[in-house]
Amino acid sequence: MGLLSLLFLDELSHGLAHLSMFPFFDTAHYFVTVMSLREQKGVLQVSRSSPLACWFSSMLFCFGGGLLTGLMMAEPPIAPLANGTNVLIASTVWYLVFYCPKDLVYCLASFMPLRVVLSGMKEVTRTFKVLAGVNQAHRKYKDALMVMIAVGWAKAAGGGLMANFEQLIRGVWKPETNELLNMSYPTKITLIGAVLFSLQKNQYLPLQTNHLMLFYTVFIVVNKARMMLTGATASPFATIESLVQNTLFCGSSPYAALPAEENKSCNGTGSAAKNGAAGNHPPTEGCRALPENREDSEITSCKKTD
Amino acid sequence: MGLLSLLFLDELSHGLAHLSMFPFFDTAHYFVTVMSLREQKGVLQVSRSSPLACWFSSMLFCFGGGLLTGLMMAEPPIAPLANGTNVLIASTVWYLVFYCPKDLVYCLASFMPLRVVLSGMKEVTRTFKVLAGVNQAHRKYKDALMVMIAVGWAKAAGGGLMANFEQLIRGVWKPETNELLNMSYPTKITLIGAVLFSLQKNQYLPLQTNHLMLFYTVFIVVNKARMMLTGATASPFATIESLVQNTLFCGSSPYAALPAEENKSCNGTGSAAKNGAAGNHPPTEGCRALPENREDSEITSCKKTD
Amino acid sequence: MGLLSLLFLDELSHGLAHLSMFPFFDTAHYFVTVMSLREQKGVLQVSRSSPLACWFSSMLFCFGGGLLTGLMMAEPPIAPLANGTNVLIASTVWYLVFYCPKDLVYCLASFMPLRVVLSGMKEVTRTFKVLAGVNQAHRKYKDALMVMIAVGWAKAAGGGLMANFEQLIRGVWKPETNELLNMSYPTKITLIGAVLFSLQKNQYLPLQTNHLMLFYTVFIVVNKARMMLTGATASPFATIESLVQNTLFCGSSPYAALPAEENKSCNGTGSAAKNGAAGNHPPTEGCRALPENREDSEITSCKKTD
Repeated sequence: MGLLSLLFLDELSHGLAHLSMFPFFDTAHYFVTVMSLREQKGVLQVSRSSPLACWFSSMLFCFGGGLLTGLMMAEPPIAPLANGTNVLIASTVWYLVFYCPKDLVYCLASFMPLRVVLSGMKEVTRTFKVLAGVNQAHRKYKDALMVMIAVGWAKAAGGGLMANFEQLIRGVWKPETNELLNMSYPTKITLIGAVLFSLQKNQYLPLQTNHLMLFYTVFIVVNKARMMLTGATASPFATIESLVQNTLFCGSSPYAALPAEENKSCNGTGSAAKNGAAGNHPPTEGCRALPENREDSEITSCKKTD
Repeated sequence: MGLLSLLFLDELSHGLAHLSMFPFFDTAHYFVTVMSLREQKGVLQVSRSSPLACWFSSMLFCFGGGLLTGLMMAEPPIAPLANGTNVLIASTVWYLVFYCPKDLVYCLASFMPLRVVLSGMKEVTRTFKVLAGVNQAHRKYKDALMVMIAVGWAKAAGGGLMANFEQLIRGVWKPETNELLNMSYPTKITLIGAVLFSLQKNQYLPLQTNHLMLFYTVFIVVNKARMMLTGATASPFATIESLVQNTLFCGSSPYAALPAEENKSCNGTGSAAKNGAAGNHPPTEGCRALPENREDSEITSCKKTD
Repeated sequence: MGLLSLLFLDELSHGLAHLSMFPFFDTAHYFVTVMSLREQKGVLQVSRSSPLACWFSSMLFCFGGGLLTGLMMAEPPIAPLANGTNVLIASTVWYLVFYCPKDLVYCLASFMPLRVVLSGMKEVTRTFKVLAGVNQAHRKYKDALMVMIAVGWAKAAGGGLMANFEQLIRGVWKPETNELLNMSYPTKITLIGAVLFSLQKNQYLPLQTNHLMLFYTVFIVVNKARMMLTGATASPFATIESLVQNTLFCGSSPYAALPAEENKSCNGTGSAAKNGAAGNHPPTEGCRALPENREDSEITSCKKTD
């Protein structure tokens, strides 16, 4: 890569690092967030029957990161509400998306090209939030890598991580699923970002902050646009993940080794299946032992119930 | 209004402002709270099978406001327990209401005239709690109206807002309902109070604090007594609410505009109905589109399950 | 008791008081905790399908006390993660217990004699945690006995008290049971310890701290070993508890006094039984009124449903 292009890259990264999120990028973030909330099941009914709960859900989604990091760092979780302007913008966006006459705003914003742009801008805010979280943790805990990763992650993926409780506000309760059990793409990419920025902050990466910001931002924006345009839902890390899982997190079947334990855990699956918890634990390809065992368990538990 | 009556009003408001809640008003608050807890379904069984859980529920109800505001403001949520005298009084009340031989105390306290007096005194504590919450928020966040409203609300309606988790302690879990989805009268009136006192604190109201306290207290006490004596359950704001809802929070049916989205959300209702979540989202009168759609959705989901 | 033995006791207690938990006792704590987690129903499936959720559950169990007391005292709940070494050890233990080839580590550690030793060492950490919690509370709240008990209890029994939310991470939700409704032996013994150490801290006990530590530690270790070796599950306090419950927490049946209230609460039980909440409220022996009433209630609710 020539000197010129390097210089250009450097300038570009500096430009990005000094970009102001307020107001345009923040607004895009609110739009994308509230629209994704609105597209969840049953939300429209709630928006009509109890607007306050709907508004509360939207705010939790828009400012969830700040709330969660506040709780984690023992700083006032209510702080995001103190920024009147942002709350006002978010509330306006919420109102327009849910209650605009003829639903004009939602129709307009869900027009594909515009939506891609909005989502792209939202992804840019992700970089800044991860970095903000990492720095927030670094202020209190020097070189506590785990804390920096956790806070950076929570700051930028707070809405998703708190989804169970956000749903509870709307009267929906789905304990059998959460972002830790089956992680969505945004949560994953945020976690990776938190790891990268935390490593960089502790000088484990031979990179300047603004360069890392540029590379990370370009990657998530391009990737997001690609997924939206091609409608691809598969995570780009699927192969790596399954590889890691099958090498590190499978081991030999513990069932062979521990028959007593096996039955215990099998009945466990059975009963778990009954309370609908096992539904979302698909056995990974690498662990051949599991499927059979789970069939056994179904049988066992059936026999039990007979 | 003559000068004399004005002077009298002023004196009265000063008297109220300097009224001490401890011990009599606080005790009345504990009595009303614990009795309302005892009258909930299944609580008596819990009080016999695990007194500790019952005591914990009662304390959560009695001191819920302090706990919730503590969490919101990153101040120790356990602080209310530090006031030994109040905890002792509350525990005594709890014991007498639940375990007094021959149930004398409960029978006595539920004697209507006495109960009206106790409830009236409890309402007085409401005013002081809202004000305390607003001031607590104002200390950290000058002119952050939203925060002051939220904290004032949480301080005086904490028990209700945390009801889901208070029930969880007793082994009851009702995710399909919470104070945000269908707000009870006390929570509503507290919210209104929080708004009024926050506006007054930021000089948006042409009133002195003690005058506002007097007017608000008189209103809630009189209204509470009226509701108890006439057995009226309808909120005095019902008409205003439905008016607001039908003008601001209805918009035209978004279903017409978004057929694809409609089906999605309809199936949503269907599945929501299955996990018992839709039961408490009665469509508001103003939104004609909803009932039909929900029938559709029932049909759709039925077809699905066939 | 002779002077020599007294001197010996004093020396022993001093030795215990200056014992360092890190690394061996902490590691034993992690081993016992993670193994008890692994032996819960359905956990092995989760460990294969989503290792991250499994790791998170394990960390919640290992460091739950610190997290909970952090929340209660408005100190960063994330602080335990800041101690890199401990997190590293806990994570290694977690990995070995769940994913060790041929499951060697788990088989080895569940070999009874070794397991008794590990559990004994874990009990020693309990003493130190209770004391740490009591001191942590004492720093902020002098002579607030309740707070010291609560924090000491939470510090050493945090994992158990947060079990509902730890399960939620794994996609399991059992609202009908928690440590307050039917307290397990470890939680009980921790509560007793918290009470004792709080009383001692406020000079209500004629004992030195290190002597109390010695007596408490010996009691819990011996008792734990006895229970493991004899397989006894009954709490050693069962008789005292039922005595206390039947004298203090029974009172005369409130049902006789309040027929109206009775039906209410009966239907309560009925509906509670439906959402599976009543299952774990066995009426205590002392309260004869309850069983009949609950039969009535079943009947009532049956009639209702007919």
